[in-house]
Amino acid sequence: MSIANDTVLVDADGLIAYCAALFADAGMPAADAHLCAEQLVVADLRGVESHGVVRMAIYLERLRCGVISPRPAMNVVRQTRSTAVFDGDNGMGQIVGQAAMALAIAKAREHGEPAFVSVRNSNHFGAAAWFAEMAAREEMIGLAFTIGGINHMVPWGGAEAMLGNNPFAVAFPMRDDIPVILDMACSVAARGKILVAAKEGRAIPGDWAVDREGRPTTDAQEALAGFVAPVGGPKGYALTLTIGLLSTMLSNAYFGTEVTNMYDDLLNPQNIGHLFGVLPISAFESLDTYYARMTKAAAEIRGVRKSPDVERIYLPGEREAILAQSRRREGLPLGAQTWRELEDLGRAAGVDATDVVKR
Amino acid sequence: MSIANDTVLVDADGLIAYCAALFADAGMPAADAHLCAEQLVVADLRGVESHGVVRMAIYLERLRCGVISPRPAMNVVRQTRSTAVFDGDNGMGQIVGQAAMALAIAKAREHGEPAFVSVRNSNHFGAAAWFAEMAAREEMIGLAFTIGGINHMVPWGGAEAMLGNNPFAVAFPMRDDIPVILDMACSVAARGKILVAAKEGRAIPGDWAVDREGRPTTDAQEALAGFVAPVGGPKGYALTLTIGLLSTMLSNAYFGTEVTNMYDDLLNPQNIGHLFGVLPISAFESLDTYYARMTKAAAEIRGVRKSPDVERIYLPGEREAILAQSRRREGLPLGAQTWRELEDLGRAAGVDATDVVKR
Repeated sequence: MSIANDTVLVDADGLIAYCAALFADAGMPAADAHLCAEQLVVADLRGVESHGVVRMAIYLERLRCGVISPRPAMNVVRQTRSTAVFDGDNGMGQIVGQAAMALAIAKAREHGEPAFVSVRNSNHFGAAAWFAEMAAREEMIGLAFTIGGINHMVPWGGAEAMLGNNPFAVAFPMRDDIPVILDMACSVAARGKILVAAKEGRAIPGDWAVDREGRPTTDAQEALAGFVAPVGGPKGYALTLTIGLLSTMLSNAYFGTEVTNMYDDLLNPQNIGHLFGVLPISAFESLDTYYARMTKAAAEIRGVRKSPDVERIYLPGEREAILAQSRRREGLPLGAQTWRELEDLGRAAGVDATDVVKR
Repeated sequence: MSIANDTVLVDADGLIAYCAALFADAGMPAADAHLCAEQLVVADLRGVESHGVVRMAIYLERLRCGVISPRPAMNVVRQTRSTAVFDGDNGMGQIVGQAAMALAIAKAREHGEPAFVSVRNSNHFGAAAWFAEMAAREEMIGLAFTIGGINHMVPWGGAEAMLGNNPFAVAFPMRDDIPVILDMACSVAARGKILVAAKEGRAIPGDWAVDREGRPTTDAQEALAGFVAPVGGPKGYALTLTIGLLSTMLSNAYFGTEVTNMYDDLLNPQNIGHLFGVLPISAFESLDTYYARMTKAAAEIRGVRKSPDVERIYLPGEREAILAQSRRREGLPLGAQTWRELEDLGRAAGVDATDVVKR
């Protein structure tokens, strides 16, 4: 496998253990630290670097300064048979999200009905696909919505950020195949990708963002000071608003002017909101019929006539799953700058990094 | 109100009665005929002409030739406390959708829990917003998904239509205000806009369509021979696939190669699928808190600093609701060609059109 000069090839399990040690050093219980690290490294393995270990520095800083709680006392505020409002007690979003989606799954499994859990007092939860996929493993369609950790989109026609680039994921279980997983935010490109480009000194495509004056820019630093552009103009605006409302209005989580900046504000907890939902297949359809239908649909999509120069048609989530398999085996290429930052974090915490890089 | 020469100003209630008479003449019961006509005219009032009375001709043709049933024996195939699979018996999608969403609302009201109803053996249901808004009137968040009545999108990288331009809607109830309603399909631009550009010999923007080989094109003629392009490229592909799967895999409705063309195929019922869902606010949050939060969120969105030349910031669905109010009062401007077509339909059916046009 050929790796560009500006990347370092690391071992996925080694990196998980390393990041877990860093989280534990910041006060998280060992199991939570490992789960959190795993979610980040899995995002990197899937090629979703924007929600991977590039976020370690800010997460650790927020944990260390006490604006995220390393040992939250999460609890169910209220519940019905098929719903709950879940309070994350300002824990890491990855940990809160895992617990809240597990609760939705447990309710759906117990009663064989759809279940929805709204969440307050959480934090940035990483990649939405992780949570939706939890449901798919239980033969349920999984839905995960969250408000973003920064307002950097404008209402359509506006020149002031009032909306996050809010992501959501939907996962469909498959039999003997990779689940179909939509995981998208509402910008043309994730702000995390602009962040990675800025860190690595690269330019960005001209349609990813506008600067603070609303002018298109290819300068990643200028883009970070401005706003990311929504997919489909007013459609992307309506979609990110909808995801934001679903994530916050059912749990009293922060929205609009209440939303702080996860990078700039190290004093105030973010009160991030999520919404998790599951639809158990068996409530609607026999599992055999559902899986047969999905298999047929997937085969038809994959089998369509291809454009010139296109080698293969992928289902949503498939390219990521294949990349993850290959990177687990061959090693995960991390940006050199990202790796240096991780080494610095380990040095400061007395965590040994020598076993992470592949020889 | 100034109306261009190529439009005819009609009275909304008169148009509803006229279209209802046409539907009744095609065999629909009076109440169903009126409901169906109302849904179409409301779409026109809201400025969503693509789902308005421009569809009368094809609907009537399908009813008359028996490929849509005017008097369906709709029934619940299976159900749990909070779910149902609903068989539309090949009725008009507007009628089937109304009944299925009403069932979801009734279940949610009875148990105070989220409810989802999947639908098979339906037809093109018009504007998704109508159904989502039904739930908003009951203090529930409403969700409506459907697969489209024609495949005219390609899987990303493909050169063969296998996906509809599938729409979905989400409605949030408001207190003393218009509900917030997202209603979007997954293409950058409607195919009708490409049709107009082709007629006028104009080029189209590069992100509207791909040619028959799946390559981006600015040639409107090439675009018409090809496929409409999804918003955000692979994101729009994943989104339209997701909406399609949600609408069909829980009800055994048609997907992929099974989908016929509602304009070309007058022999085979379409077996269109939908999914309706409702989240009762009170299961999660006190209604007072929810409405106060929504009112604050709406005020913040509407109040953001505006871009130069922007007069007003709208919430999703607001522009449509304001337009509908004005058109109910002032009259609805219909394209002259559409009106001539409606007159012809009335003449053939012996239905009087004289009271529809405003004096």
